Amino acid sequence: MLNNFFNPKSIAIIGASPKKEKLGFAVLKNILDYDYRGKIYPVNLKYKTILELKAYRSVLEIKGKMDLAIIVIPAKAVSFVLEECGKAGIKNAIIISAGFKEIGGKGVILEKELSEIAEKYKIKIIGPNCLGILDSSNNLNASFADGMIKKGNIGFISQSGAICTAMLDWANLNNVGFSRFVSLGNKTVVSEIEMLEFFKNDKKTKSVLAYLESITDGKKFMKVAAELAKVKPLIIIKPGISKASQKAMASHTGAIAGEEEVIKTAFRQAGAVRVNNLGELFNIAKFLSRHDGLKNNRIAIITNAGGPGVISSDEVEKNNLKLASLSKKTISVLKKNLPPTANINNPVDVIGDAKADRYEIALKSVLADKNVDGIIFILTPQRVTEINKTADDLINLSKKKNKPILASFIGGCSVENETRKLNKSPLIAYDYPSESAFVLGKLWQCQQSKKAAANYLRMLKRNNLTSPYPLLAKEGKSVSPAPFKREDLDFIESLNILKSYNIPVVKSLLAGNSDEVVKLARKIKYPVAMKIFSRQITHKTEVEGVKINIKNDFEVREYYDKIHKKLGSKLNGIIIQPMTEGIEVILGVKRDESFGHLIMFGLGGIYTEIIKDVSFRLAPIDKAEALKMIKKIKSFKILNGWRGFPKADINSIADSLVGLSNLVSDHPEVKELDINPLMVTEKGCLAVDVRIVVKPISNPSREGNK
Amino acid sequence: MLNNFFNPKSIAIIGASPKKEKLGFAVLKNILDYDYRGKIYPVNLKYKTILELKAYRSVLEIKGKMDLAIIVIPAKAVSFVLEECGKAGIKNAIIISAGFKEIGGKGVILEKELSEIAEKYKIKIIGPNCLGILDSSNNLNASFADGMIKKGNIGFISQSGAICTAMLDWANLNNVGFSRFVSLGNKTVVSEIEMLEFFKNDKKTKSVLAYLESITDGKKFMKVAAELAKVKPLIIIKPGISKASQKAMASHTGAIAGEEEVIKTAFRQAGAVRVNNLGELFNIAKFLSRHDGLKNNRIAIITNAGGPGVISSDEVEKNNLKLASLSKKTISVLKKNLPPTANINNPVDVIGDAKADRYEIALKSVLADKNVDGIIFILTPQRVTEINKTADDLINLSKKKNKPILASFIGGCSVENETRKLNKSPLIAYDYPSESAFVLGKLWQCQQSKKAAANYLRMLKRNNLTSPYPLLAKEGKSVSPAPFKREDLDFIESLNILKSYNIPVVKSLLAGNSDEVVKLARKIKYPVAMKIFSRQITHKTEVEGVKINIKNDFEVREYYDKIHKKLGSKLNGIIIQPMTEGIEVILGVKRDESFGHLIMFGLGGIYTEIIKDVSFRLAPIDKAEALKMIKKIKSFKILNGWRGFPKADINSIADSLVGLSNLVSDHPEVKELDINPLMVTEKGCLAVDVRIVVKPISNPSREGNK
Repeated sequence: MLNNFFNPKSIAIIGASPKKEKLGFAVLKNILDYDYRGKIYPVNLKYKTILELKAYRSVLEIKGKMDLAIIVIPAKAVSFVLEECGKAGIKNAIIISAGFKEIGGKGVILEKELSEIAEKYKIKIIGPNCLGILDSSNNLNASFADGMIKKGNIGFISQSGAICTAMLDWANLNNVGFSRFVSLGNKTVVSEIEMLEFFKNDKKTKSVLAYLESITDGKKFMKVAAELAKVKPLIIIKPGISKASQKAMASHTGAIAGEEEVIKTAFRQAGAVRVNNLGELFNIAKFLSRHDGLKNNRIAIITNAGGPGVISSDEVEKNNLKLASLSKKTISVLKKNLPPTANINNPVDVIGDAKADRYEIALKSVLADKNVDGIIFILTPQRVTEINKTADDLINLSKKKNKPILASFIGGCSVENETRKLNKSPLIAYDYPSESAFVLGKLWQCQQSKKAAANYLRMLKRNNLTSPYPLLAKEGKSVSPAPFKREDLDFIESLNILKSYNIPVVKSLLAGNSDEVVKLARKIKYPVAMKIFSRQITHKTEVEGVKINIKNDFEVREYYDKIHKKLGSKLNGIIIQPMTEGIEVILGVKRDESFGHLIMFGLGGIYTEIIKDVSFRLAPIDKAEALKMIKKIKSFKILNGWRGFPKADINSIADSLVGLSNLVSDHPEVKELDINPLMVTEKGCLAVDVRIVVKPISNPSREGNK
Repeated sequence: MLNNFFNPKSIAIIGASPKKEKLGFAVLKNILDYDYRGKIYPVNLKYKTILELKAYRSVLEIKGKMDLAIIVIPAKAVSFVLEECGKAGIKNAIIISAGFKEIGGKGVILEKELSEIAEKYKIKIIGPNCLGILDSSNNLNASFADGMIKKGNIGFISQSGAICTAMLDWANLNNVGFSRFVSLGNKTVVSEIEMLEFFKNDKKTKSVLAYLESITDGKKFMKVAAELAKVKPLIIIKPGISKASQKAMASHTGAIAGEEEVIKTAFRQAGAVRVNNLGELFNIAKFLSRHDGLKNNRIAIITNAGGPGVISSDEVEKNNLKLASLSKKTISVLKKNLPPTANINNPVDVIGDAKADRYEIALKSVLADKNVDGIIFILTPQRVTEINKTADDLINLSKKKNKPILASFIGGCSVENETRKLNKSPLIAYDYPSESAFVLGKLWQCQQSKKAAANYLRMLKRNNLTSPYPLLAKEGKSVSPAPFKREDLDFIESLNILKSYNIPVVKSLLAGNSDEVVKLARKIKYPVAMKIFSRQITHKTEVEGVKINIKNDFEVREYYDKIHKKLGSKLNGIIIQPMTEGIEVILGVKRDESFGHLIMFGLGGIYTEIIKDVSFRLAPIDKAEALKMIKKIKSFKILNGWRGFPKADINSIADSLVGLSNLVSDHPEVKELDINPLMVTEKGCLAVDVRIVVKPISNPSREGNK
């Protein structure tokens, strides 16, 4: 369906105008100027012809089939013409007009009308409040942008029109081309989700860059992002890390940032690579316009100066890259051809008195070296440096494209012209080698993200569970109706739910009175732990509702009498448990209304609460992923048999995490869940305490409507 | 003394040449071309005149007094002419010639000759293997650089000639000026230490930038860096974070990187601000060429596009800056003059259809706002944006210099000309606002570093201790000869040393045989701990040499017999201690041969060994600093009365840390020292185990000679 946005055979431009100051003029002119081959129907009440084309008063007057409508009229009239588009059978519309959700108040109401009409007629809308779209392969400039994209294979989507404009302007100077270029605007119908899905299958698009202030539906986003990231680099700016920017976004597009930890986890699991600012995004665009990606992370540095080589070695490591070990052949060629004071190991230093020939020898041999995946090339202007010739040689050698060369001529006056030449060439040129290292690092992250994405998709498939209720029934107990009716489940219900997902729980007997307590305590065998059972009291410890290490009948009665007196009718019973040993870990779940359940793992007490040494995943996860989660925390060594600690049964923790993931996948109504502690021994683990809060999930609202 | 390098009344250029391809030509030409006003004496055996100046065969032939010699002749002849310089009474020499330490082998020998001659005649040498120096106030270009620095007040020193060249080339394009510009070369006599000292007192220099691959003498560096940083911004690239770059440096200049943790700690304590790469350094240079610094960190953003405003808000926070709360007056002016859809709070969004006038109003009111310390200005090229007029307005408004404006015109083709204009203007212009936020963050760090530097200097003063031995004598025991003769002090010696520095130690009695052990255990009162006392065994736990919680005579004898049988003559006795309670912390010291003693603090066991939750300071420290160290670790909450833990006596830990600092300041021969654990209770602390390793300090070698 989205294809008609990019490759329409005919376009109606509603609000097309002959007046140069109008956006409707700019849009029509852009469509005419860049050689669009389909039919063009200007629509405007006031004119009979516009720019020598016959004009229509309404789309309903137009006889031919229209694949796409572009609407550029005042906000208040948009729903009327959209309704006409629906009647005329138009299924794709770009609404450029502003004055909707982004201004609040009546704008919100106007935008709601649009989505209702869209639903009624099944119209796909890009916008409102957008710049439009551009497509290089179909010569389509359906926007009011000041210029056209160059041909290329990067797909670009942006929730900010100004960032589209800036990117376009920058890209044209730096010879960066795009397949499609989309300004999303308010995302009232078509969001990043549909666009990512389109780009995933789009043969013209080899990589996707995006600026997103909000994620429309976290779970859907993750799935489609992973499907794309599995096959193409996907790089996104998603601001909103700071409170200030969240506030700024709210006033900018009314978008809600989402919790940073959730976004970070979601991106990592789905294989979407995140960058922080426009400089980073633009630099990556330059790379991707010239190379598809980076297969491995072995980088060679060629320089005519030690200092910048040294700094760049640091930058290479900082960006998770490796300094390549040059092959014997390369080293022998360099040894033969470079002066004795040159450094023939990586970083290759052709030294300050190098002319173009020395650079050429070094570059050619490193390009041919199978141990090298990418080259950071550095020139500083010194007395005899042949800046211009070196630039020309570089450009020639980079045309072969067998591996990326990222070049920086560091300086000002002497390198100004060559830098301009390099920027326009097929080479990848940046002002500084630190930028090269950053970009290579991100491309390497893209390469690794393919695996992460594939892994995530596999987990989604595995999570094809049967209905959970038979599982619960196996236990022979009616646990709770689905969806749960109270927000806080009681302890016994919670334990039974854990059990039904194969999470081992400590033996827990419920006693109703003083005699029963003693009887059950004896049955369990001393020492025991006693915990209050109450449907009204959520936090047991706050009322001293837990007593451990109880050694005899007397202590049992003593505690029972005391707590019974204290709580009165709030006490619905007493839970008796045997004392447990092992290492305390915590498993937790918190639901994000957009991205689903965030699962947390950490060691008990201080480690989680003070050191914040925890790891996160969004459900669903499988066992391999659960094991990764466990191994990711710093304090993992403690579980792994550190100095006298027994080696904990990691497998049993992983099984419990998977159980938890299955539980929340089956029961989206779970809002919070904590197993604290889960006691882990050398063989097995036991949930000792658990708290489950349920609340029906709110409709995954499109953040656009908030 | 260094002043003669920059303001010599006369210069001898040894190796001056009329041949254009020679460096000796370039140097002489540079001195002539940039209007140096003093006397010039070319020295060369082959010519009678050079560039119309009378030439001399040797400095000894010259009658007048010479303030400075510049030597540009082959390496092997340098020591001969340097000797002549000495005889001629020249006290300052720049040796440009290469072929010394940096090439290894005989180069090292040649350089050693230079430093011997320098010592003999008290000659200050810059170089060898350097570009030379440039001074804008004295019109002196004593280098072979291709161009002259512009007037300004930044002092620049670099251990890489190529980085000098690149900086100079870049600075001239970007209108960045310098007071003095120094290529340090091999630092055989004059190192960064003397240069920083010179810049500290230099009225022409308001800030100092440096590229340093090695630090010549860590302790001296810290002192002079702190003295400078207390009054002027000091920003340094110090590479060597990665192993790869350490290797690259070794092959570049033979410099040793130094341990990263030590460097980081030293810079922080001395108030030197570190950056990682040339882009960062150059951007900061641009700021400092136009403004002296940043008084406070309240930043306003002005933009015509929401997206970049949102991203920049994140960047502001990331760089430890704050989004300023605009004054009521500013907000009311903005409300009155901007359209209703504009954002009148920070970030101020004048929105996409803003022309120059709207920007001007916003900028003027924010410039006048007392709540704002710096402004990040963003322009994206949109349909009606008046790029050129906005640039002109900006430049005009920035001339008042009441507060820094950091501007980015984000784009390519449309903003290319204006960007070039902005770069040359008194404005601070960068490609992206993320660079502005970074630079402001670093300048704010400089401002805060003034306090750190002052604090460090205060600590140095306080550390004026009397000889330690009387202190030891107070205890009435002969602890150990000074310097210590064995490398590992025994336990009793170590405890006594701690005591003499007011570090409380647990009562520890030494028993020689089975009967004595029982007697002393009873004296201390059960339960007790027993530890082997051995001068041969360093790690007690490895031989099961520690037994805790011993409850009676029988257990004492049992353990004694067992360990006596096991160790035989290696056992010199048994230490008996009472059992102690409290929270375990670790105090450690490790000596760095250049920077002195690195003191470490952390919680016992897991926290230090697995979580690496520790803090570092270089000695000396005072109590305030010790308290900061303690509070810096994440697990500090545990000491501060977290959930049932007693609130530990932080003061007593701080006193012990200060004691440790005094100990190592008095005894530089201490190589390693660990108090593990120090048991801390609600009142006081006790060192329970200690290990001290001593080794005479190696001569603080100039890394230049390695």
